[in-house]
Amino acid sequence: MSDFRIYNFSAGPSMLPLPVLEKAASEMTNCQGSGMSVMEMSHRSKVYDGIIKDTQERLRRVMNIPDNYKVLFLQGGATLQFSAIPLNLMKTGKADYAVTGHFAKSAAKEAKKFGTVSIAATTEETGFDHIPAQSELQLNADADYFYICANNTIYGTEWHYDPETPAGVPVVADMSSNILSKPIDVTKYGVIMAGAQKNMGPAGLTVVIVREDLLGNYRENMPQILDWKLMADKDSMPNTPPTYAIYILGLVLEWIESIGGLTEMQKMNEKKANLLYDYLDSTDFYKSVARPDSRSNMNVTFRTGNEELDAKFVKESIADGMTNLKGHRSVGGMRASIYNAMPLEGVEHLIAFMKKFEQENK
Amino acid sequence: MSDFRIYNFSAGPSMLPLPVLEKAASEMTNCQGSGMSVMEMSHRSKVYDGIIKDTQERLRRVMNIPDNYKVLFLQGGATLQFSAIPLNLMKTGKADYAVTGHFAKSAAKEAKKFGTVSIAATTEETGFDHIPAQSELQLNADADYFYICANNTIYGTEWHYDPETPAGVPVVADMSSNILSKPIDVTKYGVIMAGAQKNMGPAGLTVVIVREDLLGNYRENMPQILDWKLMADKDSMPNTPPTYAIYILGLVLEWIESIGGLTEMQKMNEKKANLLYDYLDSTDFYKSVARPDSRSNMNVTFRTGNEELDAKFVKESIADGMTNLKGHRSVGGMRASIYNAMPLEGVEHLIAFMKKFEQENK
Repeated sequence: MSDFRIYNFSAGPSMLPLPVLEKAASEMTNCQGSGMSVMEMSHRSKVYDGIIKDTQERLRRVMNIPDNYKVLFLQGGATLQFSAIPLNLMKTGKADYAVTGHFAKSAAKEAKKFGTVSIAATTEETGFDHIPAQSELQLNADADYFYICANNTIYGTEWHYDPETPAGVPVVADMSSNILSKPIDVTKYGVIMAGAQKNMGPAGLTVVIVREDLLGNYRENMPQILDWKLMADKDSMPNTPPTYAIYILGLVLEWIESIGGLTEMQKMNEKKANLLYDYLDSTDFYKSVARPDSRSNMNVTFRTGNEELDAKFVKESIADGMTNLKGHRSVGGMRASIYNAMPLEGVEHLIAFMKKFEQENK
Repeated sequence: MSDFRIYNFSAGPSMLPLPVLEKAASEMTNCQGSGMSVMEMSHRSKVYDGIIKDTQERLRRVMNIPDNYKVLFLQGGATLQFSAIPLNLMKTGKADYAVTGHFAKSAAKEAKKFGTVSIAATTEETGFDHIPAQSELQLNADADYFYICANNTIYGTEWHYDPETPAGVPVVADMSSNILSKPIDVTKYGVIMAGAQKNMGPAGLTVVIVREDLLGNYRENMPQILDWKLMADKDSMPNTPPTYAIYILGLVLEWIESIGGLTEMQKMNEKKANLLYDYLDSTDFYKSVARPDSRSNMNVTFRTGNEELDAKFVKESIADGMTNLKGHRSVGGMRASIYNAMPLEGVEHLIAFMKKFEQENK
């Protein structure tokens, strides 16, 4: 096995911790002495039962998830949950959505199929460059829930507060791109949902953490697999779950615990992000895209202001051992996604390159 | 990496070819010189685009899929497709289902949420021990489709003919447990659907092969991710697909091509199944569950007729280096799932054990 590794700044799927990949490789043909790969295990077998239960327990421990929340291991990505959320939670048929980017907008659009959606706030006018303040949210007391996208990968913005809602209105958060990056007070949310492919593991696994009292209202005559109550009652296994992806999540959680849990993870993430933002703020050559109060610790967006120069930057960064620094087409410029598994050295390498590029091109 | 491997007779997830697992392990931290695992690749990257296109081309080549069929890489298992099938295909709102086992029955039940389901045939009265003959099928000329489950893992039965339908009524087949086991005339089917976790790869990937003219009738105001037309238009990537599972499918297809394609695969599978059935027919000690004309080449079901003895068989088989031979609870007895990746030696090992067990217990 060649040991060449690149600094991969992809917005997702994205880097995984090297020890996780190495352990997965070492167990590929024989996991835990079973004589088989995790991919080959019956999901109803004793050894796999141990793996999925251990993974769930680790997630509960690492995220400090209270006992009155169910943890579901699902498929279909966050996008399938854009449908599942209204189908499971809409009782009166009304919901409030904060539109802070492409994915929040898609979620709101999908929910409109199933009920009445009020836009609690939108930052589209300013190119989704910030997160609305609590005082700017127009929240309805009779809404079934209030939806946010906790981190917006494309624009590089992140909610830095837990929104408050009228009594009884649960907050539903898509945390696909910042889950496990910092401690979260789970009790502030009714539902936390995340596609795994940034901080959790491979694409093909979607985790839903849902407060028990919100279950049981799934709309009649809708596809059974989207029913969270069914999934909770069947321990995520009315049918075969994405067994290998769940196993990799378990290894990722083991790695997070080994470095000191989410408190340490947050320190490491803040250190990486601050290094990059401090450098961006110290120069006029690069412009940060997101408003300072809304900057994401996971996705750092910036431009030179000159499209040709941006393209040159991306091209030369590849030659320098980095990849996926091109910004999303709707924003342009550059985006450095620095999720949990991106080492500090990767960010230092990027900053050194940025300085050199600035010297050569300013 | 320990090299202990067990003969795993699981009904699914199930054995994968050892060369596939070994290649996956060797590429785990650096695939194709990219400096990253396939799990870490952006699904929009050039290298991953090569992987998914190559996988699709291999599948088309191996299965001889005509150009007027779309190949979709989906999530959610066959069970989510139980909903997607009526939602995509019901125009008049009527469909015919052949109920040949648990999963066919579940599919019919789910379809009833969305339209009128006629039972074209059911073999439930005889414990799902056979497949109905063409002459026994009650097919409606105005049905939107006719649904079958091509192989019934629990009972060990398999359709050994392609059913004929009234003009214009497409056959929809759940081939989860026998796809890639033999050549199939794809043109006899409107839709072929399969969860990957038997002959294709890891759980978490569902393949749908659909004739183009059947697309475009997805029901309004239903979850977007179940819309095959959307998936076809977006090359299975409106959102992130299960990237790693697709890569493993590619490796499995590479292995099938290396041994001579589906014609050779079928010969190997028939050899394994015939060995086992011939032995079962040669003794009174074991009773074959499925009717001879309907026997599956993938799942071989049998019993001693004595529950305690069956339990003893299962227990002792584990000590002899085999696993997952216990039959499904609804059938009892034993089940040997001998998919593509089960080597001939595994079946020979099982027969030797069966003979010894017979000698010791008759």
